[in-house]
Amino acid sequence: MQTLTVVKIGGNVIDDSAALNRFLAAFSGLTGARILIHGGGKIATQMAAKLGIETTMVDGRRITDQSMLDVITMVYGGLVNKQIVAKLQALDVNAIGLTGADASTVLARKRPVKDIDYGMVGDIEEVDSGQIQFFLRQELTPVFAPITYSESGELLNTNADTMASAIAVDLTRHNDVTLVYCFEKKGVLKNPDDDSSVINELNPGQYSEYKAAGTINKGMIPKLDNAFKALENGVKRVIICHADELAAAVNQSAGTTLTL
Amino acid sequence: MQTLTVVKIGGNVIDDSAALNRFLAAFSGLTGARILIHGGGKIATQMAAKLGIETTMVDGRRITDQSMLDVITMVYGGLVNKQIVAKLQALDVNAIGLTGADASTVLARKRPVKDIDYGMVGDIEEVDSGQIQFFLRQELTPVFAPITYSESGELLNTNADTMASAIAVDLTRHNDVTLVYCFEKKGVLKNPDDDSSVINELNPGQYSEYKAAGTINKGMIPKLDNAFKALENGVKRVIICHADELAAAVNQSAGTTLTL
Repeated sequence: MQTLTVVKIGGNVIDDSAALNRFLAAFSGLTGARILIHGGGKIATQMAAKLGIETTMVDGRRITDQSMLDVITMVYGGLVNKQIVAKLQALDVNAIGLTGADASTVLARKRPVKDIDYGMVGDIEEVDSGQIQFFLRQELTPVFAPITYSESGELLNTNADTMASAIAVDLTRHNDVTLVYCFEKKGVLKNPDDDSSVINELNPGQYSEYKAAGTINKGMIPKLDNAFKALENGVKRVIICHADELAAAVNQSAGTTLTL
Repeated sequence: MQTLTVVKIGGNVIDDSAALNRFLAAFSGLTGARILIHGGGKIATQMAAKLGIETTMVDGRRITDQSMLDVITMVYGGLVNKQIVAKLQALDVNAIGLTGADASTVLARKRPVKDIDYGMVGDIEEVDSGQIQFFLRQELTPVFAPITYSESGELLNTNADTMASAIAVDLTRHNDVTLVYCFEKKGVLKNPDDDSSVINELNPGQYSEYKAAGTINKGMIPKLDNAFKALENGVKRVIICHADELAAAVNQSAGTTLTL
């Protein structure tokens, strides 16, 4: 089977042009097929503020109304995605920027209203791994913005971590997949205040213990739940690392590697 | 050879959601392979104004500075492009939104500074027809925003008419190409004030006469120059028509058909 590395980068890297350039140089050096999924950073929030669009929060959760979705489509689907694609082209990576709507790669369903109406938010229904595999065979490198679409032709805001996980899992049909979550910490930490306290390997039992002890904090839980789910569903390796340590992390000499 | 229809739609259709929906329905009904190139309309100018970015004009020409390019990338490459893609998906057209940077489809060179520095404007250097053909063979419908890229990884603003013409010409290597320019008039008019005065067929000799007589006006000249250049370079048919008459125009029962 072909080797495929699916990498997710978070907003903090997107917001820092020098950090983004370093990350993209490392990404361009990865061997084998690659897919990048990016978040949007603070630019969307800043853009919304400049345009006088207020962020709606319900019970501490952000609601995506149509005007916020338009900003997300402009900033994530346009500005951030195309700048990354052009930079990768200059690094000799034949990148192709996509949302889930493009080539019907990631179909979603507008999240049903229960207690909260999240607005234009999409829960992933189906990844077209055949279509994505077709791009990879052509030596194209898909770069996904975290936007999906519904059958009725709506664009939908989708969590980038979830999108990375869903794409990685579906591509296991054709590849040995490594999924890498790059963020602002050096990995999963024993002590959130000590960046050198990286847990090198983490299995579900240890994860439960760290959660019970309160060592692994709120923000990390959905990320790790997503990550373990990917492993359980056929992804060979899941790594959580700092964006500056992508190359080392793929060689398992940095970051946290999850195991079953 | 396969039949390919390359269609360019202008900004006035983009700005009118009902007109855009009618146009996309007609576009989805075209038989054979299709490519769409869209302009951006007034949304980019409006967005720039809202963000406090002033449009720089030199000698009556618009200059694309970096902040204006960012707005164009957001609006054309993001909002407009992805909304069209999602709407086409709902019409069962497997659309893929692209800028020239995506899959290195349209490479350009930043326009050299002579009398005027146009800023971040790209003159097309090379269309990768092999790559575009590869999408067509996969039954994907490319939807291009009028943005290209340079080898050094800059995004560049490019005229949508020129981009449509360059793509149409290059795709003649693999296809019998029809190029359709859709705009707000019913075709090339004998009398600009009389929408029923459509010239059904126009050859270069007649074009020269109409120009000499002042019948064909300023805005139409670069469009028709582009159009005749496409015919001279292997495009089989060039049609200029109203966006509402796309289907009829492709059957040569509406609009102006250019001949050599």
